[in-house]
Amino acid sequence: MQHPMRITRTQLADGRELLYFDDTPEFVSGERTRTLVDERELPAATSASELRQDPLTGAWYTYAAHRMNRTFLPPANENPLAPTRPGQLPTEIPADDYDVVVFQNRFPSLAQAESQAGLGADSGPATGTAKPAFVPSKPGHGRCEVVCFTPDSQVSFRDLPYTRARTIVEAWAHRTKELSALPGIEYVYPFENRGEEIGVTLQHPHGQIYAYPFVPERAAQIAARAQEFREAQGGSGTGDAETGPDLFDHILECEHADGQRVVVQGEYFTAFVPVAAKWPVEIMLVPHRAVPNFAELHDAEKHELTQMYLDILGRMDRFFDGVERTPYIASWNQAPVNAPEDGRLHLQLFSLMRSPGRMKFLAGSESGQGAWISDTTPERIAARFREVAENEGTENQLTEKEVTQHDG
Amino acid sequence: MQHPMRITRTQLADGRELLYFDDTPEFVSGERTRTLVDERELPAATSASELRQDPLTGAWYTYAAHRMNRTFLPPANENPLAPTRPGQLPTEIPADDYDVVVFQNRFPSLAQAESQAGLGADSGPATGTAKPAFVPSKPGHGRCEVVCFTPDSQVSFRDLPYTRARTIVEAWAHRTKELSALPGIEYVYPFENRGEEIGVTLQHPHGQIYAYPFVPERAAQIAARAQEFREAQGGSGTGDAETGPDLFDHILECEHADGQRVVVQGEYFTAFVPVAAKWPVEIMLVPHRAVPNFAELHDAEKHELTQMYLDILGRMDRFFDGVERTPYIASWNQAPVNAPEDGRLHLQLFSLMRSPGRMKFLAGSESGQGAWISDTTPERIAARFREVAENEGTENQLTEKEVTQHDG
Repeated sequence: MQHPMRITRTQLADGRELLYFDDTPEFVSGERTRTLVDERELPAATSASELRQDPLTGAWYTYAAHRMNRTFLPPANENPLAPTRPGQLPTEIPADDYDVVVFQNRFPSLAQAESQAGLGADSGPATGTAKPAFVPSKPGHGRCEVVCFTPDSQVSFRDLPYTRARTIVEAWAHRTKELSALPGIEYVYPFENRGEEIGVTLQHPHGQIYAYPFVPERAAQIAARAQEFREAQGGSGTGDAETGPDLFDHILECEHADGQRVVVQGEYFTAFVPVAAKWPVEIMLVPHRAVPNFAELHDAEKHELTQMYLDILGRMDRFFDGVERTPYIASWNQAPVNAPEDGRLHLQLFSLMRSPGRMKFLAGSESGQGAWISDTTPERIAARFREVAENEGTENQLTEKEVTQHDG
Repeated sequence: MQHPMRITRTQLADGRELLYFDDTPEFVSGERTRTLVDERELPAATSASELRQDPLTGAWYTYAAHRMNRTFLPPANENPLAPTRPGQLPTEIPADDYDVVVFQNRFPSLAQAESQAGLGADSGPATGTAKPAFVPSKPGHGRCEVVCFTPDSQVSFRDLPYTRARTIVEAWAHRTKELSALPGIEYVYPFENRGEEIGVTLQHPHGQIYAYPFVPERAAQIAARAQEFREAQGGSGTGDAETGPDLFDHILECEHADGQRVVVQGEYFTAFVPVAAKWPVEIMLVPHRAVPNFAELHDAEKHELTQMYLDILGRMDRFFDGVERTPYIASWNQAPVNAPEDGRLHLQLFSLMRSPGRMKFLAGSESGQGAWISDTTPERIAARFREVAENEGTENQLTEKEVTQHDG
């Protein structure tokens, strides 16, 4: 079950790091890449982000004013995520072919300081800004990486063969481990925005990884709920996760027992529509074991995760009749770096599409108060996800659990 | 300073309540309306909403599946918010003229039960749904009202004369008081969505009021921060708001002392860009006194509030060169009904527009983790709001505070 893979580490012209993850011998890019050099003349990558904590809500926001001046995206024939083909302009990727590539974003919202001094400090001054003293703030030291899923700009994640998808899972695990070890990093977040409807202007299939120097709002809420749950169940409340009652175990037990919202139940993971889904289309993929992040998955889990992710991405694209590619956000939640017991790796895959061609707008109730109003129900969403199971019996298909369907 | 006003209460054909707020003698609608009857044949308004609390975040979401079947909006020449003109089809408003009108939404996300039984109960069964037992849930009993700002469908709130705007403030106060007194209501939320860019399909100038049977996420966060602040300052933490240290007092003090983000400082209110603004354009209007909601404002405060709100709405529409009407959400935060010391009336007026014609998309970091990334700074937003002050010296203009401008 171990996945054959070779990792080759290199640098771009401005010093940013780039890693090739090659999965198929003869490994396509790695060997040759050792000698490939990014010959562009690029100014040194800079970032002067600042973080501030909202005194009214406790959430941390990032101010990346330097990004206002970022270059506009190049025309399609200068796709920066394509391999650099002979005779064409160099892209962000020097190799002329690759399997999966990860590199540091050129215009990052969060970037490492040249020296690590001050990283993680609560009130270090950010260079050049007139900083308000009365709220917690700190420099926006972190890291933003781009993950290219394939050299082929015409396909989507769900079109990838198992091997390539598995390589991406391995890359997420690798990056999670490395980024978690950087000083000051509190949370590592892999995600994919897919579709013009949600503002994606670069069609090449890719995702991103943000390494935040704080625990973002959702993860902080989950951590608080996980602690509360342990305390309410008589646990110590201080992290004895191996033995104490666990919020995610409880949720999985309840979803399995109820069954109405379960879409696919595997050996290591269950895909279900959460009982309080907030988006018009939403599905979660949760491991049965208390795994904090990608780096802690064992091989059999990565294998099933890859299969199930491809399966539910396929269902996502069959969700709406007449819509070939449902716009989505694939949000990979992990536990906080320094509180592995206060979270669990899980996917929240969701779409803002309400019906073919019609997007949900986040108006007053949602944007102003965080009070989501849905005009469907989690049970209806789950029924639809079960309906659109792959029928052709490919190797990616898992046995669908027999569940009773109750429509509300 | 007291505002002359006459309120006339009536009912629509399906039993929904409608109130006229007439501000100018001879009062235009009220007197005649007593005899005006809504003669449409409307089916009884129904609502079968259900609320569930997200086990991972603690937020309450509303499932209003019955709204999927709501009638589509009528063509512009059948504007349902216009007065009913002789010889034309009847609208939602039977009178042939009005100043300000408030009525219950015909397709509400939240509606009162016919009997109040069960309202506010934590786990009462919602009719007809197969309800999951393992998360807190309850029927979606509450109330959704529509507020028509003027009979003229061509104008916007910022175009209203002082008198009309003041009437709307009075209507918000009146509705806040009445809705807060309904059994089970935990939070009253007046807001306005303005602009096609954020999904508004009905051009007639109007706002809405939601009366929720729970404290929504933002208000709950503010309440928790207000309690923490009192405790950290040595207060009792249990509501002695009259004497204890107050989070909003602290924020106002700091903003006044810093001055960089103050836009207009009045006698009773200050308009400033919050130190941790999350939206591309955002301004807050906060009373100097610890006022929990509109109903508790005294006349002089309502007077200044009306003037300052018209002022900042004007600035909002001058914010972007070449954009005549900036799309916005006007979000009127109040304190929870049952915890007046844990919040304060304040306006959060914001736009998702980043630059002329370009909207901010809420992608992975924002939608998935609640980690907002801004490509401007609160200080730049404030500088722009000061720049676009009204120059014609109208009666609505307040003296702009002289502040030092530091750009980050």
